[in-house]
Amino acid sequence: MSKDSEYSAIHYNSYLELEKLLSAQTLRSVELGKPAHEEMLFIITHQVYELWFKQINHELYSVAEMFQNNNVDERNLNTCVGRLDRVIGIFRLLIEQIRVLESMTPLDFLDFRSYLFPASGFQSFQFRELEVLLGLKEEKRTTYHGHGYQSVFDQKKKELLQKLEANKSVLELVEEWLERTPFLELGEFNFLEYYQNAVETMLAKEKKAIMATDALDDHYKEMRVNMLGDTHTYFANIMDEKKHEELLEKGEVKMSYKATIAVLFINLYRDEPILQMPFRLLSRLTDIDDFLATWRFRHAQMVLRMLGNKVGTGGSSGHKYLAKTAENHHIFGDLHNASTLLIPRSELPELPDEMKKRLGFYFSSK
Amino acid sequence: MSKDSEYSAIHYNSYLELEKLLSAQTLRSVELGKPAHEEMLFIITHQVYELWFKQINHELYSVAEMFQNNNVDERNLNTCVGRLDRVIGIFRLLIEQIRVLESMTPLDFLDFRSYLFPASGFQSFQFRELEVLLGLKEEKRTTYHGHGYQSVFDQKKKELLQKLEANKSVLELVEEWLERTPFLELGEFNFLEYYQNAVETMLAKEKKAIMATDALDDHYKEMRVNMLGDTHTYFANIMDEKKHEELLEKGEVKMSYKATIAVLFINLYRDEPILQMPFRLLSRLTDIDDFLATWRFRHAQMVLRMLGNKVGTGGSSGHKYLAKTAENHHIFGDLHNASTLLIPRSELPELPDEMKKRLGFYFSSK
Amino acid sequence: MSKDSEYSAIHYNSYLELEKLLSAQTLRSVELGKPAHEEMLFIITHQVYELWFKQINHELYSVAEMFQNNNVDERNLNTCVGRLDRVIGIFRLLIEQIRVLESMTPLDFLDFRSYLFPASGFQSFQFRELEVLLGLKEEKRTTYHGHGYQSVFDQKKKELLQKLEANKSVLELVEEWLERTPFLELGEFNFLEYYQNAVETMLAKEKKAIMATDALDDHYKEMRVNMLGDTHTYFANIMDEKKHEELLEKGEVKMSYKATIAVLFINLYRDEPILQMPFRLLSRLTDIDDFLATWRFRHAQMVLRMLGNKVGTGGSSGHKYLAKTAENHHIFGDLHNASTLLIPRSELPELPDEMKKRLGFYFSSK
Amino acid sequence: MSKDSEYSAIHYNSYLELEKLLSAQTLRSVELGKPAHEEMLFIITHQVYELWFKQINHELYSVAEMFQNNNVDERNLNTCVGRLDRVIGIFRLLIEQIRVLESMTPLDFLDFRSYLFPASGFQSFQFRELEVLLGLKEEKRTTYHGHGYQSVFDQKKKELLQKLEANKSVLELVEEWLERTPFLELGEFNFLEYYQNAVETMLAKEKKAIMATDALDDHYKEMRVNMLGDTHTYFANIMDEKKHEELLEKGEVKMSYKATIAVLFINLYRDEPILQMPFRLLSRLTDIDDFLATWRFRHAQMVLRMLGNKVGTGGSSGHKYLAKTAENHHIFGDLHNASTLLIPRSELPELPDEMKKRLGFYFSSK
Repeated sequence: MSKDSEYSAIHYNSYLELEKLLSAQTLRSVELGKPAHEEMLFIITHQVYELWFKQINHELYSVAEMFQNNNVDERNLNTCVGRLDRVIGIFRLLIEQIRVLESMTPLDFLDFRSYLFPASGFQSFQFRELEVLLGLKEEKRTTYHGHGYQSVFDQKKKELLQKLEANKSVLELVEEWLERTPFLELGEFNFLEYYQNAVETMLAKEKKAIMATDALDDHYKEMRVNMLGDTHTYFANIMDEKKHEELLEKGEVKMSYKATIAVLFINLYRDEPILQMPFRLLSRLTDIDDFLATWRFRHAQMVLRMLGNKVGTGGSSGHKYLAKTAENHHIFGDLHNASTLLIPRSELPELPDEMKKRLGFYFSSK
Repeated sequence: MSKDSEYSAIHYNSYLELEKLLSAQTLRSVELGKPAHEEMLFIITHQVYELWFKQINHELYSVAEMFQNNNVDERNLNTCVGRLDRVIGIFRLLIEQIRVLESMTPLDFLDFRSYLFPASGFQSFQFRELEVLLGLKEEKRTTYHGHGYQSVFDQKKKELLQKLEANKSVLELVEEWLERTPFLELGEFNFLEYYQNAVETMLAKEKKAIMATDALDDHYKEMRVNMLGDTHTYFANIMDEKKHEELLEKGEVKMSYKATIAVLFINLYRDEPILQMPFRLLSRLTDIDDFLATWRFRHAQMVLRMLGNKVGTGGSSGHKYLAKTAENHHIFGDLHNASTLLIPRSELPELPDEMKKRLGFYFSSK
Repeated sequence: MSKDSEYSAIHYNSYLELEKLLSAQTLRSVELGKPAHEEMLFIITHQVYELWFKQINHELYSVAEMFQNNNVDERNLNTCVGRLDRVIGIFRLLIEQIRVLESMTPLDFLDFRSYLFPASGFQSFQFRELEVLLGLKEEKRTTYHGHGYQSVFDQKKKELLQKLEANKSVLELVEEWLERTPFLELGEFNFLEYYQNAVETMLAKEKKAIMATDALDDHYKEMRVNMLGDTHTYFANIMDEKKHEELLEKGEVKMSYKATIAVLFINLYRDEPILQMPFRLLSRLTDIDDFLATWRFRHAQMVLRMLGNKVGTGGSSGHKYLAKTAENHHIFGDLHNASTLLIPRSELPELPDEMKKRLGFYFSSK
Repeated sequence: MSKDSEYSAIHYNSYLELEKLLSAQTLRSVELGKPAHEEMLFIITHQVYELWFKQINHELYSVAEMFQNNNVDERNLNTCVGRLDRVIGIFRLLIEQIRVLESMTPLDFLDFRSYLFPASGFQSFQFRELEVLLGLKEEKRTTYHGHGYQSVFDQKKKELLQKLEANKSVLELVEEWLERTPFLELGEFNFLEYYQNAVETMLAKEKKAIMATDALDDHYKEMRVNMLGDTHTYFANIMDEKKHEELLEKGEVKMSYKATIAVLFINLYRDEPILQMPFRLLSRLTDIDDFLATWRFRHAQMVLRMLGNKVGTGGSSGHKYLAKTAENHHIFGDLHNASTLLIPRSELPELPDEMKKRLGFYFSSK
């Protein structure tokens, strides 16, 4: 490709490096003199995965960078949300793509499966990079046969992963950004107090109303009051920073108390102009968590379908391991938890005027 | 359903009115004593369409309402964008659903097709409502056998449609809102002048660079210079309000000059906080236009597959009519056109500080 | 609707009973004087689910009927596979549709959630019908708070479910049909012996080859030989009818020994003309199992997102219960298991000529 | 990769040639010192397209090969249908993927668009290969600026395309196979006569019934009788081989008379065992035609969105050209046309017993 000028003529073929790209499908079965038609699909599907992983990581690195310094530019939030939207769009493809791979039947796979030993998706560096970038910690991982996830990589790649683990992940960067949310107190306004009052009032009112309802029989009354009790416990926890510290230590939550309160605030007042984009950002991270889990779940299904209970090419009882990770390898679970703590808008206290102004645009405040 | 209290117990069955809903599938073929298995699919698919149309219209009415008065609350933009996102999600389903209907083969359809005469999708009131709400005008419609689209409805429904046509559509409401965009001039800053200068400088620079490029042969030089010329014409048009008025009269554009300039401004400075949501809003409307066109296109394909070139149950050569509407019944084409007028960010002049402040948050401006 | 003749004119509106259909959305929040915009989405989404459930059940009943008598007409297999394909297409929609419901945020849900108590998806009769039709047995179900799944229905519906449970499910009907597969023995040909020999030869050859491979270090050799051992155990099990009976008793498999062998035979010789459609039928049932599990998984995710760890409107810790059913409520697991028992085509003995002829078409056998 | 033995150990990384694959993304904007974040997406999206095109062509070549000799093995039909199913699954991805590319806004594209000149999707060799393999003829193509589609390729690739055009396409191979359908006459049974009688009887009966219907007013009676007339013309055409030859010459149909009759026969008697797979094969080809057209349509939409009415990087008014190809570049249109000629099953004459036997399995005929 001629590099001398931005006006040089360029061909689709050389721009996309198609010679290179389209010569990278070497079928083992062909090399071994026992050509298996379906091996092409196996290779291409996995190569497409790797290309998309590269793209996802390209986006995640850029998002991480925008949160890197301690002063996130609001102009960037728009871009961040757009890039996360794109990551979600890619995950849609990754999930749908499993269906294409499933068009290869288990019997077809047997035609070349034994030649691939011990290659395995466990050895995908970019996928581990993706997980670490988002914030999956080594100690949170389901181990496989007691080995850490890094054991399958060479020294150079191990070091890259360790370095990446040492850097701040998207989860940690977003946490720090949340901790800096400046609106939680202002003059008379103390968000936590406001919120606590609203919760108490709401629960008391609701209990009274339930007890007074003629249309409800005793069984249901009891049920609803019990539900209120449960709810009460959840709310009590969030008001108590110590409780939160305990949960943090046990690993049941990941975000600091301050960040958690900010998540609650953003969710409750998401329509105020300055919170609209932060709200979208948190929603996208929740989406990514869900799509990633769905991908793991579908991946586990595909492995079961392809191998039954046989061990995978990498020697793993792949299905069970993968099904477990779909359940356990959540990264942004704390954002899901916020749902538990929301209260109806009708119970929310009106924000003081000065507060409203601060959450709005310069233009409209004039 | 007991209505006396919000705490009354309620059952899934009665809440969803399932008795009613699930007794609304009367197969003509069964009534006539010649049961056709596939008629159930035909009915249910169309009923699901109608339910989703009801939901889409529910969202569109609410969006229109928020733009109704002349002072749109910025808090509502978040909600609007969310609701349009939902409409897009529903269109995804409507398009995917065609594939399910296509699982009925043409031969299966013949088992009951003749009993349906002259029922036809042309008679869907809610779909016409949807089109009118968005902003499709009667005079823009491809007519079918010379009849207006309202001719298939009874008097009451005709009047409803006429009334709806008399109200402002989403297109018109958004246009008015765009016309009120307040940032196009401020002190020294005049957006159109800024933009015009940037365009001229860019085109001149580009032409000079092309002529000076050794790596480009004459054929390509000429080609690129011609392309610049074309581009120049487009840009010239936008600078000339009279030209725009002519296009309006010819029906080649729909939005006023002022609104069009605002669309350009929002696209170019979309990352400024106060423009982030407006940009998203415009993007969603473009998406809806595209999804609607795709639905029409797929619908036309399905009709061709099901009937070949036979006339439809409503007596129309359905395929050709539908294919034409996919091409012509665009509503937000002016938003697509904005792409033609964008220039690279690197060529955009920096906004004056005072302008930047006005486009930002009250909080950050302090 | 005029019923006197199949040539009577009919309108889209009355054919689809749209008056009825579109008047079945009564918002509780509106009735209670506190209108919540999002309740419409909640109702319509669930109504669409119910319409699709009706369609799925319409297909499943028809499939069951074709397998009802002991002599399945081969002409019907084509139709069966087509109808199961359609069910899969509908499941695609049901899964995609969850994304639309998720466009309602947890905070939006709180605006009307408390009015719905104790309505819950657990009370969907048609969904239980679907599960029972396919073959989910009461004793296999994860119970919820110790209550059987029928406890939420009225007497009439309970009886309908019990009657349905007493009938043969699709799983049982397919099992019986499989047991009648007539090709497992013919003259010299005994499928099980053929298969057993092939397995033994393959395993011995493979072990020898592994031990002789210079390119493999000892760690890998051991690993591969262990994998062979595991595989050997699986194969041994299938050769031993007693072992199978034990697994049946423990509930680890569901299909009889005879049916299981037939599944294996159909998978291995799927390209023989008479087995092409049976193979497709089994594949579709596996697909349905997978799609149903994915739907459960996504449903569980949505509940978590909407409610966090709060109890559902029906008083259940919905998320956990649903996640468990995604794991446990498999119906056609035995079809997945067949993958474990397949051997590469290159190791399969050639079928005797007479056998091949019997598996072919009358036309080609001449 | 060690090639000495099929038991050699192999790593995911080297198997998938990831070094090569993941080093093939060279951003022009980076090389030119003006890095544009979004160029990565542009490159990767197109590379994924090319990988999938390779896979599709892999399948199409294999399908063509199975039809190559004059005696298609019925065992292969199963495999063919499976591979075409996979091609459809890949097209789903290709269409969905456009949405991901659309996440790059027009403004983002401008950051690097000018560096790509005159690279263009017109220069994708594999896509042209795909079209030619399926059966798109040069003379049927919409030309672009008067140039043939081959003009953008180098000499070697031109020759490859010419050679491919000289070979039989899937369309032609399937046509030849259809022409060999052996069941159209047998003893007393002559399919065309049977069919013609059925058509005449049906039309006469229907006309009489319409005239006698009290429930139908004159306007509708006339309408229905006119529809019958139209239908009559279509049916008359198919009975007349000369008419067909004329249509062939005008290019309005592509398949020979014999093949067209076979398509009709297969559609009408699709449930007979020996026709079940041929029916599926024809359906899949129709699907591929539809999916390909949808991809073209969506591609045209994306180009409009990205460039407005500007000329593309390859110097084309891309949107209009692409929209035209969505309409005109149909390959299997004759399979769609068959729908026009179908008659309800209730009007079909029963097949003679001997005929039924011949369309069945050897096993069942005993």
